[in-house]
Parts: sequence; C-alpha cells; structure tokens
Amino acid sequence: MIDQTAQIGDRVVIGENVVIEENVKIGSDVVIGHHVVIKKDTVIGDHVHIHDLTSLGRSPAGNKKMARKPPVDLSPLIIHPHSIIGSNCVIYRGTILYEGVLVGDLASIRENVRVGNDTIIGRNAVVENKTQIGERVTIQTGSYITADMIIEDDVFIGPCFSSSNDKYMGKGNYPHQGPIIKRGAKIGNNATLLPAITIGAESIVGAGAVVTKDVAEKETVAGNPAKPLKRT
Amino acid sequence: MIDQTAQIGDRVVIGENVVIEENVKIGSDVVIGHHVVIKKDTVIGDHVHIHDLTSLGRSPAGNKKMARKPPVDLSPLIIHPHSIIGSNCVIYRGTILYEGVLVGDLASIRENVRVGNDTIIGRNAVVENKTQIGERVTIQTGSYITADMIIEDDVFIGPCFSSSNDKYMGKGNYPHQGPIIKRGAKIGNNATLLPAITIGAESIVGAGAVVTKDVAEKETVAGNPAKPLKRT
Amino acid sequence: MIDQTAQIGDRVVIGENVVIEENVKIGSDVVIGHHVVIKKDTVIGDHVHIHDLTSLGRSPAGNKKMARKPPVDLSPLIIHPHSIIGSNCVIYRGTILYEGVLVGDLASIRENVRVGNDTIIGRNAVVENKTQIGERVTIQTGSYITADMIIEDDVFIGPCFSSSNDKYMGKGNYPHQGPIIKRGAKIGNNATLLPAITIGAESIVGAGAVVTKDVAEKETVAGNPAKPLKRT
Repeated sequence: MIDQTAQIGDRVVIGENVVIEENVKIGSDVVIGHHVVIKKDTVIGDHVHIHDLTSLGRSPAGNKKMARKPPVDLSPLIIHPHSIIGSNCVIYRGTILYEGVLVGDLASIRENVRVGNDTIIGRNAVVENKTQIGERVTIQTGSYITADMIIEDDVFIGPCFSSSNDKYMGKGNYPHQGPIIKRGAKIGNNATLLPAITIGAESIVGAGAVVTKDVAEKETVAGNPAKPLKRT
Repeated sequence: MIDQTAQIGDRVVIGENVVIEENVKIGSDVVIGHHVVIKKDTVIGDHVHIHDLTSLGRSPAGNKKMARKPPVDLSPLIIHPHSIIGSNCVIYRGTILYEGVLVGDLASIRENVRVGNDTIIGRNAVVENKTQIGERVTIQTGSYITADMIIEDDVFIGPCFSSSNDKYMGKGNYPHQGPIIKRGAKIGNNATLLPAITIGAESIVGAGAVVTKDVAEKETVAGNPAKPLKRT
Repeated sequence: MIDQTAQIGDRVVIGENVVIEENVKIGSDVVIGHHVVIKKDTVIGDHVHIHDLTSLGRSPAGNKKMARKPPVDLSPLIIHPHSIIGSNCVIYRGTILYEGVLVGDLASIRENVRVGNDTIIGRNAVVENKTQIGERVTIQTGSYITADMIIEDDVFIGPCFSSSNDKYMGKGNYPHQGPIIKRGAKIGNNATLLPAITIGAESIVGAGAVVTKDVAEKETVAGNPAKPLKRT
C-alpha cells in the first residue's frame, strides 16, 4: 500500500507488501525490502537501502508507570543518502541519520537521536532517545546506548556494551544524564558505564570493566570497579 | 487475512496485511499496526495498541538437544486492556499481560508468564517461561529474565541485566530455579544474578555486580563477586 | 509472492504474505509462517519449520567505515532437515545449519557460519560471520558469538555471553581471531571473553567472569579478571 501523497524518486525498487504512509518522501535509487513499513512524513535520501521487515518512523508510547511522558510533537525521521538499514529494525520519528550510516539487523533507535556520517550502529544495538552520536563511530552488536548520552567522533564501542542514565534507578521525574564519551575513546566488550561519567578522549576501557567514575584523557582502565592500569 | 471465527470489537483500527487467526477475540478501540500476526485463540482487551510486525500467541518449539520438552496444552495468550505492545515483538501462548503493561520493541515473552498491572518490559528484553512479574515493575532495555523467576511489585531492573536458573549448566532434566527479587529492590545495569538466589526487599545491587549469594533486605551490594558496601 | 522458479516439495504449509524468491528449493513437510521472506537460492530441507516474520538468505552490506568489505560471492543459505527457525530472525547467505538445529526468535546469524547437528542458538542471540559451531552445542538467549570463533561439540554457553575478536578495537584491516571454546566447556551467564583466547575442554567459566587469558582443560575460573578457583 503506497499512499497517494507519497513522493517517490526514480529507479526505486520496492519489495512485496511494503506500506508507505502519507507524506513520505523517498529519493532516487533507493532499494526497499519486503514487508517494510515507512510511516507518515518519513524522509529517505538517494541511494538508501532498507532491508526486509523494518519499520521506520514510529512514534513513542508510554504507560502509567513511566515518569517521563513521551513527546507528542516530533519532526519526521530523516535518513540521509547512502545509508543502509538492516532487517527487522525499528527507528522512531524525530531522529536524523546522516550520510552513509549503517544500521544492523534487529537494531532500534528512538526519537530525537542524531547519528553522524559513516557511523555504524551494530546488529541488535539499541539507542535511546535524545542521544547524540558523532561521525565515524562504531557501536558494535548488542550494545545499549542509553538516553541523554553524547558520543563524539571516532569512538569505538565493542559488543554488548551497557550504559545507564538514572542514578536513582526509577525514583521519578528528575534530570537524567547518560555518559559522555569523548573523541577517539575505545571501549571493550561488555563494559558497563554508570550515569553521567565522562570517558576521556583516546582513553581505553577494558572488556568487562565497570566504570564508576571519570576516565582521564588517554588513560586505560579495567576491572570491577575499573581502575587505571599501571603504565609500563 | 481475518479468519471468519474471529470476534472484533468496535472502532478497531487494523493495519495492512494483518493476519488474525481462528477464535481470536479483540476488544474495542484497539489499534493494530501493519504486518501484525495474531495467532489462534489470542484474547486482546479494549484500548490495546499493537505496533507493526509483531507476532502474538505462538506456541513453543523444541529440538532433540532440549532436556525439557515444551508444553503442548497451553491456554491462549491474554492481553488485558490499555496494554501497549511494541514493534517486532514475539509473545507466546499461555501468558497473561495484565492492565496497562508496556512491552518495548523487539522484546519477547515466552509461555506461562504473568506480568502485573502497569509493568514495563523494555525494548529487546527477553522473559523466559513460567516467570511471575508483579505490578509497577520496570525491566529496562535488553534485560534477560530467566525461567522460573519471581519478581515482586515495584522492582526496578536496569538495562542489560542477566539472570540464570540452571546451576549445572545444561546437564539435564532436573528442577531449575531462577532468582527471586523481592518487593522494591533496585538492580543496576548489566548486573548478573546466579540461579536460585534471593534479592531482599528494597535492597540495591550495583551496576555490573555479579551476585553469587542472597542479598539481605535493604542491603547494598557491588563488585565481582558482589559484597555488601560499608555503611556510611 | 512465490517466484515461478522456486521448487517446493509435498505437504508444505505456507502462511500469508510469504515471499519466496527465485531458485529457492524447499523440501517436503515444511511449515512456513506468515510474512516470511525466503531470498533467492536458499535451500530448505524436509520437515523444517520457519516461524513468522523471519528473513532467510540476505546478503551482507557494508559502509565506508568498515575496514573489511563484505564478501560478494556467497553460496546459498542451506538449512538441513528438522531444523526450527523462530520468529523475526535474520539468517544470511553462505551459512549452513545442519540437522535438527533450533534457532530462537529474534536471533541473527551472519554469512559463512556452520552450525552442527542438534545445536541450539537461543532467542536474541547473534552469531557473526565465519564462525564454526559444533554439534549439540547450547548457546543461550542473548549471547553474542563474535566472528572467526570456533565452538566445539557439546559446549554450553549461558545467557548474555559476550565475546570479541579484535584486540586493537577497530584500528583497521588486520587478522581477527575470536575465542576458541573446546569440547564440553561450560560458560556461565554474562561472562566476557577477550579475543583469541582458548577455553579448554570441559572447563567451567563462572557467571560474570572476564576471561583475559587461556583456561586450561577441566579448570574452573571466575572473577574479573578471571582466576582459577582453588580446588577443594
């Protein structure tokens, strides 16, 4: 079902049973897999490739238990040219993926996120709302990027990374702050970051480290709780 | 495809390519996204919202390697009013979601689970079979809730939590017991619980902690293995 | 949509809105759920069951940031008889699942993987490219099996396991090596393995352990970093 208000460019390949809702804009040379859903107002640039069974442009929801209500007035999802979206992904309204972004299968990205040029969001990764991700960042498979996080350019995050932004663990409606990861830092697989800490530029966090306080620029930390490694 | 034996209430919005199998009962004011599958006998209450590409009511499967064979005679999946189910979710027969439950995108819930009123099951979370979850519980994104687990009311579980229920790790067909998390406990992100331990009421488990034995009521533990923090 | 070049055996049950592309071969007594996508050239043996909303046989993709370009000339995906594939899964070309394999919902398996007879790949698990998995292996829910990994027969991997294969964390295009897990080893939930280490036959890795070097045959290790437990 393609809504008659949708605008579709040249040489677009559309799979079986694709749903394109009202006011969607699709550039040229786009490939759309089977059973894809593109929700209203979504904007897709030239040469974007969207794999099967993915839903683009959904709006957030909330229940009674959620302290912070979802925003109601989001701008459309915008996917810039040459980006690739995997199979069975879910990406929300209010988010912008810049040029050449790669999103792996079964990943989800919430509202009001920015993802810079040529960044990779791995398979099964989750990016929460209001997080800013720079250019040429690698976020590997299964990593969890909490809300209100800042990830600068050229950061590398290994698989199964975990972060949090709520130091009182669900006590209510107060400001949350995710970690800040500065330019070029490298974080090993299954590392854990606590809320609001800063990981310095070009620092290294070891695999499995539990980081409870700031890491200085170019420092290497490991362990639970993470401590600086002795320089050799 | 809507089977002719399905009963559908008033003001129900049904997306494109939805499959509703035999004997499904759907209340009024329900919204069903595109490409949703509602398998036979499923019961959906009023004001439920189901997002795109979700499958509700599947039956369990097993292969030769599985020590415990899946049950064959499950009651239908029942979703009570005002619940919200995300995109690309999978929820099994034999399970009940009570009122106002929120299930995030890409989450899955197996058979014979109970989820209490106003509880949140986060995006990408997995809940295994025969687990009981109370009211107003928060289970954040990517958490793994093993089988045979009991989670009481008002528990908070941060993202990327891990639990297990099999202390002999796959040796065969003997009783399994997941952890028991008592009322109001809070568990930090990427914490690990071993089988059959009890986390006391209103206790706190730090982010990244590996909990190998019981935690007392109101106690705070952290580290690997987790130990009580000194009181200040 | 079933392409006219597809070959389909006897007594095959095909759900609603299934897409079967060109040159697909499907055996007899196969069950295919709703909204399944079977991409070109895929080969499916007798008595295979594929649940809803799964995509089989996709090709890999890459963006500018990826040091190693995806292969272009992959053999078809082959699924041997009596295997079961869950809902919302993604499995790539170039991979072979042998007899009686069980793949859980929302799991993904990349190109050039081999999965031995009667092995279980849990729900939400991810298996990266070029990994070899033996027979009767259990990989539990949410585990991350990196690329270039070898997992021998009868290994048990608990839920939320994490591995990595890149000791320089994204520095470029050099050889990668995932861990090697020898026959009958057991690994607890949320354990972390560093690149290129060997886990000895019949050894045990405790839940939450961070394993930074080789583990000897029949040894038990735990902690961060993991150390041998004293024998009792």
